[in-house]
Amino acid sequence: MRQNQSRILVLLTVYVLTGFTGANAASASDPLPSWNAGAARTSITDFVSRVTTKGSPDFVPEPERIATFDNDGTLWSEQPIYVQLAFVLDRVKEMAPQHPEWKQQQPFKAVLENDFAGIAASGEAGLMKLLAVTHAGMTSDEFTVIAEKWIATARHPKTHRPYTEMVYQPMLELLAYLRANGFKTFIVSGGGIEFMRPWTERVYGIPPEQVVGSSIKTKYELRNGQPVLVRLPDINFVDDKEGKPVGILEHIGRRPIAAFGNSDGDLQMLEWATAGKGRSLAVLIHHTDAAREAAYDRKSSFGKLDKGLEEAQQRQWTVVDMKQDWRVVFPAAGK
Amino acid sequence: MRQNQSRILVLLTVYVLTGFTGANAASASDPLPSWNAGAARTSITDFVSRVTTKGSPDFVPEPERIATFDNDGTLWSEQPIYVQLAFVLDRVKEMAPQHPEWKQQQPFKAVLENDFAGIAASGEAGLMKLLAVTHAGMTSDEFTVIAEKWIATARHPKTHRPYTEMVYQPMLELLAYLRANGFKTFIVSGGGIEFMRPWTERVYGIPPEQVVGSSIKTKYELRNGQPVLVRLPDINFVDDKEGKPVGILEHIGRRPIAAFGNSDGDLQMLEWATAGKGRSLAVLIHHTDAAREAAYDRKSSFGKLDKGLEEAQQRQWTVVDMKQDWRVVFPAAGK
Repeated sequence: MRQNQSRILVLLTVYVLTGFTGANAASASDPLPSWNAGAARTSITDFVSRVTTKGSPDFVPEPERIATFDNDGTLWSEQPIYVQLAFVLDRVKEMAPQHPEWKQQQPFKAVLENDFAGIAASGEAGLMKLLAVTHAGMTSDEFTVIAEKWIATARHPKTHRPYTEMVYQPMLELLAYLRANGFKTFIVSGGGIEFMRPWTERVYGIPPEQVVGSSIKTKYELRNGQPVLVRLPDINFVDDKEGKPVGILEHIGRRPIAAFGNSDGDLQMLEWATAGKGRSLAVLIHHTDAAREAAYDRKSSFGKLDKGLEEAQQRQWTVVDMKQDWRVVFPAAGK
Repeated sequence: MRQNQSRILVLLTVYVLTGFTGANAASASDPLPSWNAGAARTSITDFVSRVTTKGSPDFVPEPERIATFDNDGTLWSEQPIYVQLAFVLDRVKEMAPQHPEWKQQQPFKAVLENDFAGIAASGEAGLMKLLAVTHAGMTSDEFTVIAEKWIATARHPKTHRPYTEMVYQPMLELLAYLRANGFKTFIVSGGGIEFMRPWTERVYGIPPEQVVGSSIKTKYELRNGQPVLVRLPDINFVDDKEGKPVGILEHIGRRPIAAFGNSDGDLQMLEWATAGKGRSLAVLIHHTDAAREAAYDRKSSFGKLDKGLEEAQQRQWTVVDMKQDWRVVFPAAGK
């Protein structure tokens, strides 16, 4: 009995101390309250401290503090499907009444019947058809309105929260922390550049001009004397894998010193960011948390992280274990 | 005699008063000391005042204060030839000893013999050949070093000043004035994006990520495990005429509210910038000053300003008369 009491006391003490530490970490003075203490967090704060300390051999002047972030799976959830694919499917269903022929035409038929195997079977040609009807044929201004309306009303199929609340709270804190330390933060995503721009400033604090993404071609035209940019059904640029350093050069024009990704599609961006002369930081978000989000890596059909885990070990990149390193995953509801 | 004395007095008074006004305009409190009073200057300061005054019906929030500037003929001189063409010609001559065959091959032969008619006669195919040997075949980092070295040592053929001193002092003041009023300033030029980026921050205060220009394709490669971006001899994007609004959408992702150009190549950019909902400003720099720089417009073989002058009148765009509106054209030597 005595031993039991003592044990309870120890447990209580641990609990109280842990609670205290927790409260401490979450205080206003901690810029990363959703990050648990550990190697991942330390590697980030240590890097920031080194490159921002004047006189440090690793000091980097403010204009060169460029940080690039993948979006799907790095800043917001890509589960159960890419958010932009959900947009495509919703748009096809919304437009279907004006296209009765779609009931018999693939890949539209598959979309209308929620036949995911059928969509996948339509391959790249099918995807291009879906892209053409949902992303092209309107002006850039019209597409922005469509994307804005959708993102304001669409809900995540599992949590029923707006997709813009399915962003990672620890990453929101990280973005703000880097900016407070003189970094300029960019998105470098395989997603559509004009699909992201309507909401990245509000959600991530990243303005349209700091968003790099995949794009279709646009054409300048005068319609009744009014200039418009018409979206064409042709791919202009694919901002994925080898495309990411290319997009970074084209849009940013200097090498990032910090890069954040979560899949093998981000590998080349992380290689590029860490190949400069000075100190750099490469971070992979590892989806290890089946309870709070999803657990996937080497065998996932999308967001696959396989080579990246090898390279991270060889090159001493930081791997964030979502389950272990993140105190919370998503922001509180209604945020 | 008495009348003569009185006349002299009047003239002296006018002279002193003018001198006084001049000194006043050039005082530290005037952000645009190189701009003479007049309609052009007033249209700019009036616009800035309207869009930055809280409560004004024309108020524009800071993140949306985007201003785009053409470069050649708008921020620096394009006379007697485009600076980037001078770079191409110099590079061909520098590389010629390694290419003895160029003595017999067009368009290289024409370049080596300073035969401008011959260069022109080689047409677009010839220009592509010159572009390929001077702009492609190296990594992006190597090209940056080449461009940096050239711009540091090359001299304007007439003034013998570095090209980075052949920039327009009134435009430097305008860039700083707009930034002081919460504008983000971008270059949107037909010139090569990687040719400009090495020096735009130092010369104009415009960082690489705010430079939009023409580009060639690049390819990501690992060379002995080191990542490089290789410059390929293929055009990626031509940032001129209808290309300018396309480049603005791709790089900036929102419509400028102020745009500055000097030729018909800037027409579409100015149309695009002024087609938004709120108040906007479109400015054309008209080269009217043969004594201090050059006088050219409707009949010039490059930097042609013809349609632009018509459209400016119809649409009430601001036309800057360099001779009349600018107190000085170039910065003091050694600046």
